[in-house]
Amino acid sequence: MPYKAISGIGEFGLIDKIAAIAEPTLHSVPKLMTGIGDDCAVYQLSEELLQVATTDMLVDQVHFDLLTTPLKLLGSKSISVNVSDICAMNALPRYALVSIAVPSSFSVKMIEELYEGMSYAAKEYGLAIAGGDTSSSRSGLVISISMIGEVSTDQITYRSGAKPGELICVSGTLGGSAAGLKLLMREKEIMLEHIENNEPYNKSVMADLKEYSDSIQHQLLPLARIDIVRLLHSKNIRPSSMIDVSDGLSPDLQHICRSSNTGALIHESRIPIHPATRRIADELQDDALTWALAGGEDYQLLFTIPKERYEAIADNKEISVIGETTEMEDGLLLSDIYGMTIDLSSIKGFDHFSS
Amino acid sequence: MPYKAISGIGEFGLIDKIAAIAEPTLHSVPKLMTGIGDDCAVYQLSEELLQVATTDMLVDQVHFDLLTTPLKLLGSKSISVNVSDICAMNALPRYALVSIAVPSSFSVKMIEELYEGMSYAAKEYGLAIAGGDTSSSRSGLVISISMIGEVSTDQITYRSGAKPGELICVSGTLGGSAAGLKLLMREKEIMLEHIENNEPYNKSVMADLKEYSDSIQHQLLPLARIDIVRLLHSKNIRPSSMIDVSDGLSPDLQHICRSSNTGALIHESRIPIHPATRRIADELQDDALTWALAGGEDYQLLFTIPKERYEAIADNKEISVIGETTEMEDGLLLSDIYGMTIDLSSIKGFDHFSS
Repeated sequence: MPYKAISGIGEFGLIDKIAAIAEPTLHSVPKLMTGIGDDCAVYQLSEELLQVATTDMLVDQVHFDLLTTPLKLLGSKSISVNVSDICAMNALPRYALVSIAVPSSFSVKMIEELYEGMSYAAKEYGLAIAGGDTSSSRSGLVISISMIGEVSTDQITYRSGAKPGELICVSGTLGGSAAGLKLLMREKEIMLEHIENNEPYNKSVMADLKEYSDSIQHQLLPLARIDIVRLLHSKNIRPSSMIDVSDGLSPDLQHICRSSNTGALIHESRIPIHPATRRIADELQDDALTWALAGGEDYQLLFTIPKERYEAIADNKEISVIGETTEMEDGLLLSDIYGMTIDLSSIKGFDHFSS
Repeated sequence: MPYKAISGIGEFGLIDKIAAIAEPTLHSVPKLMTGIGDDCAVYQLSEELLQVATTDMLVDQVHFDLLTTPLKLLGSKSISVNVSDICAMNALPRYALVSIAVPSSFSVKMIEELYEGMSYAAKEYGLAIAGGDTSSSRSGLVISISMIGEVSTDQITYRSGAKPGELICVSGTLGGSAAGLKLLMREKEIMLEHIENNEPYNKSVMADLKEYSDSIQHQLLPLARIDIVRLLHSKNIRPSSMIDVSDGLSPDLQHICRSSNTGALIHESRIPIHPATRRIADELQDDALTWALAGGEDYQLLFTIPKERYEAIADNKEISVIGETTEMEDGLLLSDIYGMTIDLSSIKGFDHFSS
């Protein structure tokens, strides 16, 4: 059999293959309602109550860089990215299992800092760190977290429920996390260059990061939008579809449209780009819109609701309407500020296995 | 603050520190009944039903070696080790989340084989592979699996319920997995030596492994004792305490005794050592009893029951009575075949962080 590299089929191609192999196992567990393919698996606890379950693995040098990431913030972020998946189902988190593989060079204090960050975030979200596993690692740190949440059967929200003619909404701002990451990468390069050239290195060499602190915080300490889920519950609004923006607005909107069999038309002028992001993009000669569309890691909620339900949340400043769902054959379009339409399906997010 | 290496406090010292940091998060979730410290976390679903949750991370070069481990078997084993933790709570598995970090050198076919092994095992145990995460890895393969199971409130079994004067029982045989691992390591060394010396290498150079296949199977394809859990349920036997033998009989019995505040006296002559293991130990000039006590990875169930309940399972050939629980101050003792008593607490299992 000829060698076929994973890069040839990409991350989503690989997930499709895995889902096909795992699919037959679903039949033996009737209470399991959704397997691979949404933000969470869904398991029926009772007629009224559903359990949602998600997992995320964070790998050193792939998802984070310890040169630019304090361990306490990394711990908090690793909890938040899982809570964000739970929120994407319109659910609330209950408990987490945390596994780590630790290089032998790590000190006890470093592990304590990592867990202090996790514990702090867990308390903020009201979830318990209930168990886990520890192992040594021959290379870098690996963090794997699984999280369990709950949602009533009349509030559960999938990616697949959008219909043409509904409003597309997004919480908060986009692009800030990508801007923060680019800044941290620049600072790291400066630092490494100084070390390489044996030049004296002190903090004043680096740019004063204070003015960028908000963007860097979006990257290092993102917060899951559990407040939006609580708002939706309190207003008795069930979105027709929802996802969290972890890959970027464009790929995540594509996930919703593909699952729901709709198209979408969004407007550049309505995309809530994070305030400092345009300035940072100018400084780094990059493009803020691209960061919002494909940068990822914003952990905002992207959802659709029927127009007649919008009034209930219209006064909330944290929710922006960025466009409307359309018929599937109309495709995924972005109308830019000059009135041109751009095909969004050409804008991909990060692929772990792209060549 | 002076640097304090993890090896200085060991794996269990590290887990104690993590548990202390995570402990405050438990208070906000009253339905979470047990956090870190047993084989699974326990979450109350209803008055009659409990959910149990466990997670295990398997790391290349730490938990497995791809030179001696076919990926299909590795997939199956990674499911089985989690099912074994579920069984240790007297529970049955329901669904699993599977995360992998994959080196870029892996082919699509290799990942498919891994998941085919997982899927095969999942079907055997009657559980669903419900979701997961895929990532690239800068070094070796990492597999992280979380598993959810269920058990009624009147069948749940913790490590902590043993009382002095009860029977200590173990399922199946012990030591076979360690014997299989030693054989595989010997064969790997022979192979690498031949490669290093540029000698022609073919299978006939290696020992004929057929005669060892049963031991190697215990190492590469262990099976969780879900059959024993089903037997206990059908006989309406609830052990007073239970654990799975993953670290070795000695450390795992220590876990039960420490959690239950008892001592134990077990008898060498009654320990069901895997048939081929003594012969392999002789051949490798090693000790079969040590493998049974501290080799680990046998994934048998070790449990205690009151004497008056034993009759119901006495005719089962897969369950051996190896001793009795005693008062805590009597310690953990092994009576050897010469009538000498050995302090079991001096025999440790594998520590990921030992120096």
